[in-house]
Amino acid sequence: MNYPSALIEEAVNELSKFPGVGKKSAMRMVLHLLKQQQQDVVKLGEAVIKLRTQIKYCSRCGNVSDAEICNICNNPKRNQHTICVVEDLRDVIAIENTNQFNGIYHVIGGLINPVSGIGPDQLNIDQLVERIQTEKTTEVIMALSATMEGDTTVFYLSKKLKSLPVNISTISRGIAIGGELEYADEVTLGRSIALRVPYQ
Amino acid sequence: MNYPSALIEEAVNELSKFPGVGKKSAMRMVLHLLKQQQQDVVKLGEAVIKLRTQIKYCSRCGNVSDAEICNICNNPKRNQHTICVVEDLRDVIAIENTNQFNGIYHVIGGLINPVSGIGPDQLNIDQLVERIQTEKTTEVIMALSATMEGDTTVFYLSKKLKSLPVNISTISRGIAIGGELEYADEVTLGRSIALRVPYQ
Repeated sequence: MNYPSALIEEAVNELSKFPGVGKKSAMRMVLHLLKQQQQDVVKLGEAVIKLRTQIKYCSRCGNVSDAEICNICNNPKRNQHTICVVEDLRDVIAIENTNQFNGIYHVIGGLINPVSGIGPDQLNIDQLVERIQTEKTTEVIMALSATMEGDTTVFYLSKKLKSLPVNISTISRGIAIGGELEYADEVTLGRSIALRVPYQ
Repeated sequence: MNYPSALIEEAVNELSKFPGVGKKSAMRMVLHLLKQQQQDVVKLGEAVIKLRTQIKYCSRCGNVSDAEICNICNNPKRNQHTICVVEDLRDVIAIENTNQFNGIYHVIGGLINPVSGIGPDQLNIDQLVERIQTEKTTEVIMALSATMEGDTTVFYLSKKLKSLPVNISTISRGIAIGGELEYADEVTLGRSIALRVPYQ
């Protein structure tokens, strides 16, 4: 493509590095930016730079944080002996929004994926083992995706934690609340029957 | 939503201002940025800021340009008496990529759209009239979208230019090359019959 300006070419190239954004979408973003007020675009650019250069991670759970220890770990009202293991901070936000969990988190930063070359060594797993031992954790809840990679990671973690005096659980799988049976896939439906729970 | 960091909250808010990007997509972009090298993210942020603060527009045709007059207007090999009227610079790029047009452009910067409150006054139209008079233009090609707004704008422009000694044409409408008849909409198909051309 021939761009009428080197500035546009550079911005398109940079914006098209976002996942799912091609050159055409990036061009649409550039046109949007050109129509905005100058100070608003500067604010966006600075927010992006500040995000990456000033971000800190909680030294305990690996969640992002503005301080050395994150607000969740630092909250004395939360159960410090129940650790919920999640993939990344999106999952922390999603679980926090349910208001159903009062423990603390451990962000492992990914899932075991041999195809992409991600092994247990690249994940924040050793620190989890250390935490369980030093923090006298009583329960570890695995809240990982119900995918091949998620299941592999849960399997690896459960073997790794087997010798420790801690209960391991996983979040329940089944038909989504509000979900219609006829639209559920066969595997989910089959497992939701196998994993049925007493009616309360 | 509760964000674990003010930096993330600000970046999500800024990124979700892009058209078609909601808070969830913005969060995905933020996670992507956090995984990138610091210098790459700085480069992105700076490209965005530079784009908006350093961009210049060609004082003749309104296209973006790194100089006072754009490369297209400045090219002596191009026909300086045929002006192609387009909405924005995306259309300039699209037409340039066809290699089928050797004239120059006039970017009007939008389409007449009463619903959004965009009238002829907000578009770069008066300058077009001036150019046609001073540059001795012989032909004006309307290359605007085949939508209600595009047709309205063509209608307005054709009335405005009627008294000037210039030929007005519009790009052809019809079945796209490679398009199958059964998937064409009725209006396009009907007009492609009404606007049929001699077989060459």
